Amino acid sequence: MNKNAFRQLSYGVYVVSTWDNGRPTGCTANSAMQITSEPATIAVSINHDNYTNKCIQESGRFAISILGEKSAPSTIGVFGFKSGRDNNKFDEVEMAVKGYMPVIADACAYITCEVVDKMETSTHTVFLGKVLDADILKEDDPMTYAYYHNVIKGKSPKNAPTYIAEESAVPAKEKYVCSVCGYEYDGEIPFEELAEDYICPICKQPKSVFVKQ
Amino acid sequence: MNKNAFRQLSYGVYVVSTWDNGRPTGCTANSAMQITSEPATIAVSINHDNYTNKCIQESGRFAISILGEKSAPSTIGVFGFKSGRDNNKFDEVEMAVKGYMPVIADACAYITCEVVDKMETSTHTVFLGKVLDADILKEDDPMTYAYYHNVIKGKSPKNAPTYIAEESAVPAKEKYVCSVCGYEYDGEIPFEELAEDYICPICKQPKSVFVKQ
Repeated sequence: MNKNAFRQLSYGVYVVSTWDNGRPTGCTANSAMQITSEPATIAVSINHDNYTNKCIQESGRFAISILGEKSAPSTIGVFGFKSGRDNNKFDEVEMAVKGYMPVIADACAYITCEVVDKMETSTHTVFLGKVLDADILKEDDPMTYAYYHNVIKGKSPKNAPTYIAEESAVPAKEKYVCSVCGYEYDGEIPFEELAEDYICPICKQPKSVFVKQ
Repeated sequence: MNKNAFRQLSYGVYVVSTWDNGRPTGCTANSAMQITSEPATIAVSINHDNYTNKCIQESGRFAISILGEKSAPSTIGVFGFKSGRDNNKFDEVEMAVKGYMPVIADACAYITCEVVDKMETSTHTVFLGKVLDADILKEDDPMTYAYYHNVIKGKSPKNAPTYIAEESAVPAKEKYVCSVCGYEYDGEIPFEELAEDYICPICKQPKSVFVKQ
């Protein structure tokens, strides 16, 4: 079995959010798909270990914020690499309340849902949500998972014309990678010369968590 | 509720296939997502009215062929706009057998699965499949649903720089649209002057099913 085949499935980049007894919380997700049209239902898959899973089970509602290419990439880090158990994630990212639910203000669209069914697996819950409300928030292209990996991380995809040139003709440069979220530093200034208050643009962890590879 | 928000969710373009008592069949699908990692499971959503749904229920197995940008667009039509009840779809599209399952030979990757759970909704079954086999078939970019709509159909997306110019500055041209699959003819030759044996490049229906809009 070649697990690289799984990476050929196409996904978006979403924040799935809900209320935790009046406190907004949520997590980054890639797995969301519309299931039925009338009434409209959408399935999302959330890991059991995500605090958001427990909160959705309790509140019976969730919102999907569809991130766009112009959405701040730091949102992905805040919602993807910290736990809502210990962090008020919405303190760091601007929130809007739509359809009575907390959503990401700079997302390109949102959908709010009421849980009507679920399927449990060994590690994830697939929630089936009946859509209560949905709207476009701004003109933007939805961010795909491929865009997040290939563009935001600044790497050339394997089939881009620059790929072989980078690998062979240019001398190997030392890579600095964030040990928390995997972000690879690719700025113009050499990593060592960055100010000490440099933080990872994705997960906002300090310079000290970067490791040389 | 603004249902246009649903279109901001990102999807790929897949053929979900299986055996129908030794005869290969399948249908086009957009909804597939990996759910768990170890063991790997993937969820696909198939309409109750699709003959493939009945065949997966009976065989307990399915394959996902992940179409790439270089895959023949006619595959989408053959598998999306005809029923496997009355058509041997694989007579029109080259088949490969991988992991004992029928797959699309010119897909960029395939994944074969055994059904381990399912969730029924009003119109669709969400099958949860444990991955049995998977591999890359050729170097290609996976086709996204957005690519299928924006590039294969030849229309400008709303946020493309050409969109407003086309709509306002250029005199409105008569549009001919396939009444079966919705393909909009956009060739250089005026539609009326096309040979009578012209067929829709997507669903292979004859020229006579096109309607002027």
